[in-house]
Amino acid sequence: MRGCWRAAAAAVGAGGGRAAGRGRFPMAKSKFEYVRDFEADDTCLPNCWIVVRLDGRNFHRFAEQHEFKKPNDDRALHLMTRCAQTVMQELEDIAIAYGQSDEYSFVFKRKSKWFKRRASKFMTHVVSQFASSYVFYWKDYFKDQQLLYPPGFDGRIVLYPSTQNLKDYLSWRQADCHINNLYNTVFWMLVQRSGLTPVQAQDRLQGTLAGDKNEILFSEFNINYNNEPLMYRKGTVLIWQKVNEVTTKKIKLPKETEEQEIEVTRTRAKVVPLHCDIIGDQFWEEYPEILAEDS
Amino acid sequence: MRGCWRAAAAAVGAGGGRAAGRGRFPMAKSKFEYVRDFEADDTCLPNCWIVVRLDGRNFHRFAEQHEFKKPNDDRALHLMTRCAQTVMQELEDIAIAYGQSDEYSFVFKRKSKWFKRRASKFMTHVVSQFASSYVFYWKDYFKDQQLLYPPGFDGRIVLYPSTQNLKDYLSWRQADCHINNLYNTVFWMLVQRSGLTPVQAQDRLQGTLAGDKNEILFSEFNINYNNEPLMYRKGTVLIWQKVNEVTTKKIKLPKETEEQEIEVTRTRAKVVPLHCDIIGDQFWEEYPEILAEDS
Amino acid sequence: MRGCWRAAAAAVGAGGGRAAGRGRFPMAKSKFEYVRDFEADDTCLPNCWIVVRLDGRNFHRFAEQHEFKKPNDDRALHLMTRCAQTVMQELEDIAIAYGQSDEYSFVFKRKSKWFKRRASKFMTHVVSQFASSYVFYWKDYFKDQQLLYPPGFDGRIVLYPSTQNLKDYLSWRQADCHINNLYNTVFWMLVQRSGLTPVQAQDRLQGTLAGDKNEILFSEFNINYNNEPLMYRKGTVLIWQKVNEVTTKKIKLPKETEEQEIEVTRTRAKVVPLHCDIIGDQFWEEYPEILAEDS
Amino acid sequence: MRGCWRAAAAAVGAGGGRAAGRGRFPMAKSKFEYVRDFEADDTCLPNCWIVVRLDGRNFHRFAEQHEFKKPNDDRALHLMTRCAQTVMQELEDIAIAYGQSDEYSFVFKRKSKWFKRRASKFMTHVVSQFASSYVFYWKDYFKDQQLLYPPGFDGRIVLYPSTQNLKDYLSWRQADCHINNLYNTVFWMLVQRSGLTPVQAQDRLQGTLAGDKNEILFSEFNINYNNEPLMYRKGTVLIWQKVNEVTTKKIKLPKETEEQEIEVTRTRAKVVPLHCDIIGDQFWEEYPEILAEDS
Repeated sequence: MRGCWRAAAAAVGAGGGRAAGRGRFPMAKSKFEYVRDFEADDTCLPNCWIVVRLDGRNFHRFAEQHEFKKPNDDRALHLMTRCAQTVMQELEDIAIAYGQSDEYSFVFKRKSKWFKRRASKFMTHVVSQFASSYVFYWKDYFKDQQLLYPPGFDGRIVLYPSTQNLKDYLSWRQADCHINNLYNTVFWMLVQRSGLTPVQAQDRLQGTLAGDKNEILFSEFNINYNNEPLMYRKGTVLIWQKVNEVTTKKIKLPKETEEQEIEVTRTRAKVVPLHCDIIGDQFWEEYPEILAEDS
Repeated sequence: MRGCWRAAAAAVGAGGGRAAGRGRFPMAKSKFEYVRDFEADDTCLPNCWIVVRLDGRNFHRFAEQHEFKKPNDDRALHLMTRCAQTVMQELEDIAIAYGQSDEYSFVFKRKSKWFKRRASKFMTHVVSQFASSYVFYWKDYFKDQQLLYPPGFDGRIVLYPSTQNLKDYLSWRQADCHINNLYNTVFWMLVQRSGLTPVQAQDRLQGTLAGDKNEILFSEFNINYNNEPLMYRKGTVLIWQKVNEVTTKKIKLPKETEEQEIEVTRTRAKVVPLHCDIIGDQFWEEYPEILAEDS
Repeated sequence: MRGCWRAAAAAVGAGGGRAAGRGRFPMAKSKFEYVRDFEADDTCLPNCWIVVRLDGRNFHRFAEQHEFKKPNDDRALHLMTRCAQTVMQELEDIAIAYGQSDEYSFVFKRKSKWFKRRASKFMTHVVSQFASSYVFYWKDYFKDQQLLYPPGFDGRIVLYPSTQNLKDYLSWRQADCHINNLYNTVFWMLVQRSGLTPVQAQDRLQGTLAGDKNEILFSEFNINYNNEPLMYRKGTVLIWQKVNEVTTKKIKLPKETEEQEIEVTRTRAKVVPLHCDIIGDQFWEEYPEILAEDS
Repeated sequence: MRGCWRAAAAAVGAGGGRAAGRGRFPMAKSKFEYVRDFEADDTCLPNCWIVVRLDGRNFHRFAEQHEFKKPNDDRALHLMTRCAQTVMQELEDIAIAYGQSDEYSFVFKRKSKWFKRRASKFMTHVVSQFASSYVFYWKDYFKDQQLLYPPGFDGRIVLYPSTQNLKDYLSWRQADCHINNLYNTVFWMLVQRSGLTPVQAQDRLQGTLAGDKNEILFSEFNINYNNEPLMYRKGTVLIWQKVNEVTTKKIKLPKETEEQEIEVTRTRAKVVPLHCDIIGDQFWEEYPEILAEDS
């Protein structure tokens, strides 16, 4: 980025300031500027869905130090979603996002030409916007809990050539959410209510199937897993939705002397969170526009 | 990252929780997990210097909205350096960093094997740690100035096969700092003191050489550019330095009944900022260990 | 490839010979073998069509020196196709090929796992097999024309995420064939029959549309371009076709003393050349199996 | 490559023919030409040595079918070298090549800008030129042995940032040559002279060290391995050497009526084969220009 608070270049147009600058130290510039040629082209293959997934760095330690509630901390999950919403609103061409635990996946439209589809741009804009938002919005969710240090996130980028591949990617993440949440729910019941040590709880669950865990929850803790909050079991899907906003405006009509109040309805796209199944077909049939080729 | 605040998996070892999990929904997992094969290997070529450079996103606007002082805002520059120090301390294998304006370059050791030299890891860890630190430390530098929104940063990665290439890269950035700062210094004098509009100031400077600008500063504003703060003219270099820390400790010596206070001197590596020329040889001769092959 | 005519390793299994070898000079090997880590992973994104296109190197000069007939030399075109057939038969997973002039494109199945989808393998196997075949089969087509020197070919690899993208690629090459052939047909008529110099012919054709060229051919040379050979106008498509081969075999039936001759019909896949339009839908409707997802 | 034996485009300049062509079917072209954007940039990092190594494909079978002499076939080795010389002469910027068995490595200068350093160009030009030369020059080496089918070769490309890395690469290949040749020499003595079966010979050599193999050769076959031909033990190094060529020319001097014969000495670079050690320093000290930075 050029221009910044060296506001001269900014005020007069960064391009001008730069171009002018170049002429001034022709020797110095020409001697070093060859190093720009070492930058590689990391353009993403056209017509593929672009997924950027981020994960918290060392969030086990981070969760302990900030006393996250186990197995799920609503404040932490809502903060993650708040950051993901900011990413979708600030960046361009994100069609859908999916989050669970300390990870979030962002899906860029397959026709996106944002930043010429450069992989480094997609990755770094996502993780930096997410990371700064995490600290910025922290206090809105962890009111009495001080943020002790700035957290880090890692990111990766993956391309999916077909829409089925992309759906399978999202299904993979949601299946992962389910498996981990079921395990963690039982595990923490055994520790928190039955007084087992973590190692004992782990041993108890060794080799159990999903049905076994459901049974433990039901018979020992009177918990029907299917009644657990959807956000825990399904994670969070972020999609764009059109909402009507009604505002009142004062205008002076022709031939009238007084201003009049009128209602103006404006349609605006908003990022909304859902906690629903995205493995089956129903979700995609309900929101066909998300993955529409020409979206 | 797996484990996070779903602390069960964490407490019992993320690996175990995962492996166990995999056995539970064999159909679901095997059906979707193929999508992992779409992730590309982005390993950096061995034995090259790895540079990650980040830039503020839309920092022209950000600087205006947060009333950065022109042409240089000390608070902003110091905050950038604070973030860069955090990056160097939190991440591994960074040998040196150089910053100016709203950009910072981080140089990883050419032998680094951090995260198997995966480009995406280098980039996203740097920018996310920098971005979260920016918000976290904001209030330490902009005391009375509220942060209005979480800023974004973009990042890129470049490899340099030889030490000379790397030095030339850093020289390129420092030459850029000089050119822009000289321009901006004169430009803002013309606007702030002579009352020119930005367009008039730009016109005035059109086609001028460095000597011309120095002359304007001296004859019209009585400013000797070479007396301007080094931080503005040279930017900021961050290097590791060994410092001795003396602490007092109470111990009970054998055959004594009372505790005694002793002084313990410990050598610790610390990130220190310098504002000096790195284009010439002197700096590299003074700190040969920075680019030592086996560093 | 290891083993080759140092036939010991070959005879006893290349792997064995190598593994044994490794233990013998542990110092020498361990000291240098690190250089293998510099080889980059060039795996192609899964689920994409892989196209390798090759072009003759300096074939303008090659054509002149070997007195190719203008505007089309049947011997040269048939030789190209013979080489392409060899490539399809010797390599794996090629679904279709298209050639014109001195270029040929080979399309590998989108699910192909040949050589782990490594780009370098696809490219080098195609061009080396093509190049050696070109010299090997030369005399079958250029009977009285000696091959003066071994020709070179260059190759490139391109991925197409969707079947429509792939069809458009092939359409692009066929449209290119048409445009060039129409131009060349008129050009050489003007030179060979009307006695224009190449520069005069070029000037004459400057700015003409397809209709103009058709008109020149018809009115001046009594040629209906649509009656020109399909191979010149459409290029050559190579596809796999099942053919029944009937062979006679002598067998001795149970309870019989004499051998009897019986006919055995075997179905075999063969590479056959077509000269037809592949831009429209008809071809793809006629041969749906070529681009079938699970092919 | 465009133009080829459709010599019109060639004669008048391929560019012209193409450019003209483009205007003619604007719809068709513009509709399909987007597929060109799918081609990836495969530029090699500047200032690195570029190595292309090729290997014969299925050369075990090829060697058997063409009755290669074991353990080394001079005809085959000389043919490989003839092809490699052709590659060095026809392509640009190859500083040195090294071959053994059915493989050859070509080292392009680290400053080479040939074909914009595109990896696919380096690889495909090398292997196609090599493959066509193999068939073309076959009869010069295998006089009475018919070539049964056109062989294939595979290729790969590797970058080396430092000259030491490159030397280590070449050392790795020469160490490999030594290990394999020693093994094969003993193995084939045991089979050919002692009448062991391949499996028996393999068992006999299982676990033996270099010294053991030397001992077997000496005590059982009266062979001093160090007296074996250098080409077998060291492989073949190809370097450029300046040679003086003296030719006679007839010229007519001013003021003379008769033509006179004069001798003209011309310095020409020629590719010459050596069979020497390249692991130690001596070779590189003798030929410092090969790896000179500015070569």
